[in-house]
Amino acid sequence: MREAYHLELGQLATKLAGMCSKVAEAMELATRALLEANLSIAEQVISGDEAIDDARSECEEQAYALLALQAPVATDLRTVLAVIHAAESLERMGDLALHVAKVARRRHPAPVLPEQVQGYFAEMGRIAVALARKAEEVIHSRDVAAARAIEDADDEMDDLHRHLFTVIMNKEWEHGVASAVDVTLLGRFYERYADHAVSVAKRVVFVVTGRMPGSLTGDDL
Amino acid sequence: MREAYHLELGQLATKLAGMCSKVAEAMELATRALLEANLSIAEQVISGDEAIDDARSECEEQAYALLALQAPVATDLRTVLAVIHAAESLERMGDLALHVAKVARRRHPAPVLPEQVQGYFAEMGRIAVALARKAEEVIHSRDVAAARAIEDADDEMDDLHRHLFTVIMNKEWEHGVASAVDVTLLGRFYERYADHAVSVAKRVVFVVTGRMPGSLTGDDL
Repeated sequence: MREAYHLELGQLATKLAGMCSKVAEAMELATRALLEANLSIAEQVISGDEAIDDARSECEEQAYALLALQAPVATDLRTVLAVIHAAESLERMGDLALHVAKVARRRHPAPVLPEQVQGYFAEMGRIAVALARKAEEVIHSRDVAAARAIEDADDEMDDLHRHLFTVIMNKEWEHGVASAVDVTLLGRFYERYADHAVSVAKRVVFVVTGRMPGSLTGDDL
Repeated sequence: MREAYHLELGQLATKLAGMCSKVAEAMELATRALLEANLSIAEQVISGDEAIDDARSECEEQAYALLALQAPVATDLRTVLAVIHAAESLERMGDLALHVAKVARRRHPAPVLPEQVQGYFAEMGRIAVALARKAEEVIHSRDVAAARAIEDADDEMDDLHRHLFTVIMNKEWEHGVASAVDVTLLGRFYERYADHAVSVAKRVVFVVTGRMPGSLTGDDL
């Protein structure tokens, strides 16, 4: 039973890595669509979301089958449940990339972002994608030290997000209310994406090591 | 085994009902804190969030124990997993009520909301609380027809949320950018709370009937 369990768990982890890769790509493209006001890239993200939802269903079904057939207990049980939770967070990350793409599409051909904040979103996009790729990497490498880097990256995201608000709230903001509303929601989407990535990383570390890193928390996990 | 399973599942459902009640109360108070700019009510919500987090941990631990001891399969397995997911959504609803309370505290003693949009939030608060209470009710009554009402209530929330945006985006909005940012984020918190409530209701219906209602979906579940 242990051998079958480990084999199936390995397959599940591979599926999870595939989801990490998919949501990283979705956010990378969504950020490009946003910064370049590129409609066809936005459409690509929007139509690609279904594949992420499907991947989540597959992960969940496979995890259910593993629970039903192997009836794991103790750490093995928690490991399978960690996969289910991680898959859920990854689906949510895909949704958030989708939201970004939809904002880009809604305003097309106008650019959503005033030039003044484009740099923030380029950077938040870069960090978001790096977080998802790091989680994927940890699954393959089992290098838990790499997971630590995720904490720092999330702190950077929180700093950027806070600073973005000071820019919007500043009396010199001259791009109007509608633009401030878009920037506010977009900032929130990136920040939540990063929070979920931290949660995924935590669970991935648990799946590959059997130990939960206590300090890898998002703002409201 | 079946008898022990059903006994323990019943206890789990009761815990879940307790969580519904807690997050309903949190959102009721948070909305009052927001509308009345009442600091002590905001503080009450903020300090109460830990109890919701604890209730989620307890639900999850009890669900893990049930999985480990009873090793349920098929529908029974899915039922226990539905409880775990519902508890997670409920914790998140508590977080969103907490966010509302924190906005009220941050702006105190100034009111957060321009009078023009207070009615929207009074109504969104009412719907949010009703959604959580409805989910609680379904656990006790096992009346699945009541769960249907949750769909309608969530549609109402989405309508209000959309309409709120047209108010903020309107050229006649004269309350400034900072206020628009607050209203945008708050609107999002209420809408997400309702989405999670729909998700909880779906899973609760599954827990009490063994069938998942397909149509009870939130905007991005």
